[in-house]
Amino acid sequence: MDKLQTLKGFRDFLPQQAKKRQYVLTTLKRVFESYGFEPLETPVLEYEEILLGKYGEEGDKLMYRFTDNGGRNVAMRYDQTVPLARVVAQYQQELPFPFKRYQIQPVFRAENTQKGRFREFLQCDIDTVGTESTLSDAEILAVAYTSCKNLGFKNINILVNDRRGFSELFKQQVLKEEELAPILRAVDKLKKIGHEAVLDEIKKLNTDTERAKLILQKIELQPKTESLQNIIEQTKQLDVPDGAIVFDPTLARGLDYYTGLIFEVELEGYEAGSVCGGGRYDKLIGIFAGKDIPAVGCAFGFDRILDAMEEQGLLKNIAGAATVLVTVFGREFTEKSMETASFLREKNVPTELWLDSDAKMDKQLKYADKKGIPYVVVIGPEEVEKNVVTLRNMKTREQKQVSVEKLLDEIK
Amino acid sequence: MDKLQTLKGFRDFLPQQAKKRQYVLTTLKRVFESYGFEPLETPVLEYEEILLGKYGEEGDKLMYRFTDNGGRNVAMRYDQTVPLARVVAQYQQELPFPFKRYQIQPVFRAENTQKGRFREFLQCDIDTVGTESTLSDAEILAVAYTSCKNLGFKNINILVNDRRGFSELFKQQVLKEEELAPILRAVDKLKKIGHEAVLDEIKKLNTDTERAKLILQKIELQPKTESLQNIIEQTKQLDVPDGAIVFDPTLARGLDYYTGLIFEVELEGYEAGSVCGGGRYDKLIGIFAGKDIPAVGCAFGFDRILDAMEEQGLLKNIAGAATVLVTVFGREFTEKSMETASFLREKNVPTELWLDSDAKMDKQLKYADKKGIPYVVVIGPEEVEKNVVTLRNMKTREQKQVSVEKLLDEIK
Repeated sequence: MDKLQTLKGFRDFLPQQAKKRQYVLTTLKRVFESYGFEPLETPVLEYEEILLGKYGEEGDKLMYRFTDNGGRNVAMRYDQTVPLARVVAQYQQELPFPFKRYQIQPVFRAENTQKGRFREFLQCDIDTVGTESTLSDAEILAVAYTSCKNLGFKNINILVNDRRGFSELFKQQVLKEEELAPILRAVDKLKKIGHEAVLDEIKKLNTDTERAKLILQKIELQPKTESLQNIIEQTKQLDVPDGAIVFDPTLARGLDYYTGLIFEVELEGYEAGSVCGGGRYDKLIGIFAGKDIPAVGCAFGFDRILDAMEEQGLLKNIAGAATVLVTVFGREFTEKSMETASFLREKNVPTELWLDSDAKMDKQLKYADKKGIPYVVVIGPEEVEKNVVTLRNMKTREQKQVSVEKLLDEIK
Repeated sequence: MDKLQTLKGFRDFLPQQAKKRQYVLTTLKRVFESYGFEPLETPVLEYEEILLGKYGEEGDKLMYRFTDNGGRNVAMRYDQTVPLARVVAQYQQELPFPFKRYQIQPVFRAENTQKGRFREFLQCDIDTVGTESTLSDAEILAVAYTSCKNLGFKNINILVNDRRGFSELFKQQVLKEEELAPILRAVDKLKKIGHEAVLDEIKKLNTDTERAKLILQKIELQPKTESLQNIIEQTKQLDVPDGAIVFDPTLARGLDYYTGLIFEVELEGYEAGSVCGGGRYDKLIGIFAGKDIPAVGCAFGFDRILDAMEEQGLLKNIAGAATVLVTVFGREFTEKSMETASFLREKNVPTELWLDSDAKMDKQLKYADKKGIPYVVVIGPEEVEKNVVTLRNMKTREQKQVSVEKLLDEIK
């Protein structure tokens, strides 16, 4: 091996990055649980036949598959929806319904790697399985909104639409049923490629300019469905502020399986794309159970959320693991430092003790800097004599002598 | 596929189990971080050559390995120590030293499955890399102790020994250097198979009964090394109570790579084995860096900890995701119920709203029972008239009418 490295598309997360990830996860989980969603975990490896053929040709190609030591054909987790469908079918007797679960695990796809696209990445899904009630749609929107709000984002826009609106269009004979899927895919690109380019794409589907224009116009002028109107009303009672939910008749979402509400969460000022998206999909979760099982849910783009938070300065204050480094002035002061560290920990202050009795103070301060520890405590001969400690604020470089008891007041 | 199932040795964790796992993880992480350990994450897949040959013949055999779509030979994470060694070598310039990290990720081993042995299981490691100071040994013992204490265990015994004590024995010509490894493996079984059986095992190494007895006796009478004495003293300043650390000269630990302190954490009354173990290993972390890098650490047996907590009744009070279920009495009461749910969430009470306007109350109560939600709120015509809600304690089956504002006081 020429040099030490991870595989392309796979990442190490060193502490500074790992801490940010944990912070985001903890925040999201807290929101999910506050609405009664519960955690579910499924294995990294599944029987290949569970996953194969569920994600289209492309999915089968990008899936990590191999034969294990026992000759079984196995595949690595590709998403969390097919495992959810398996779990729902396999444990139908013991699960409570509606089944409200969140799942946050890495998935594996042998994608071409490019900016922001990885071969191992965390998926973060919430879904409500087993009810068609619009209340469950409204709740998913409320959770998506609250999650973004609690992460610190301002100006959150949730674009919503109803897939059934498009079906209306072929009832009105604006378009044929078989045209719907390719037209949805074209319309989905409206924001990215613009009006003219979408028209061109629609024209490619064997349609003249006039008809393409008509189709796009009809789509843009679609009214809200009654169901969508209900859902939007209900989000208000769930404390989503007026105006956060925006009806967008051109919102299409690429995936075929949506059957009702679809939505995407956009953050003003963040141009890379939506940070969360989802909708209702009543025909998918039942694949293993052999019957339709209604479901609504959404997926958070975890890497994109981190990217947006970084861009908007929302991750600046993720502190080091410890709030205080208690240094060791020299061998004969070790015990005093250990006592102080224990005292602080007992008072619930995350405290790191320098682990060597013979290191220069300079080295210890540099260590605190590197780890982003905001406070350093020094206990040397002068401090012992006066029965105080020296507290150094690593940001302002100020330091002062205080009694051990006063330490807690000084550390905000 | 005849029936839906996971692969042998792989597990689904349904919400009830997943919540317990999260509770344990959160508790452990909080302890680790209170001592300044920081999270590290490495990929599930690595280049095969990084992992191969690092775990002995057995390890190579049990490793999940395959050739990916790009023709690369890859292997699934087998433990977290070899990835740590890679990280330490690859990022030596940017990491702070001593490098104190914790890592909690699943590892994969194609073991014969048996009770308590799985093919995917969570490893939970803390390690301090880059210092030989006995303070770092003492700190690992303190973290192990505090972790068990904070999980709720009583009567925690940490058996400790020093591998260098055994080296003394061949300096004293009690045994030859090449005998050490097999004798350690035999002595390691002392608790499991008893004195006589260990003697038999030692005799199998071409030794007569007299010499075998002498060897075992010398091991049992070994004194504490000076280093071990220091470490034990220092744990006291780190608030480990007197008596929790027990010197056991016959403690050997199976693995070859330990070079100093070794320890195992036992819980009185829990007979399945130690729940945590570790020690100092100064020759292993440097394998990729090409130089010795001292390290000390420990691994928690995550599944065994859950098992022990279950046995000792420490997981009984892990509540449902939500504290309250707000039911929906009927369509015209939906709005009132939504408002109440939002009110409770705003006050930081995890609250689930029943998501259907037409369900019987009985069904809703059963749902709360199944999910283990301790309180249920009912708002029907009587409640609306009196401007109260009915609060039902699902455990005691008692219910009373209270004002919405008083709800918070009633929910402990």
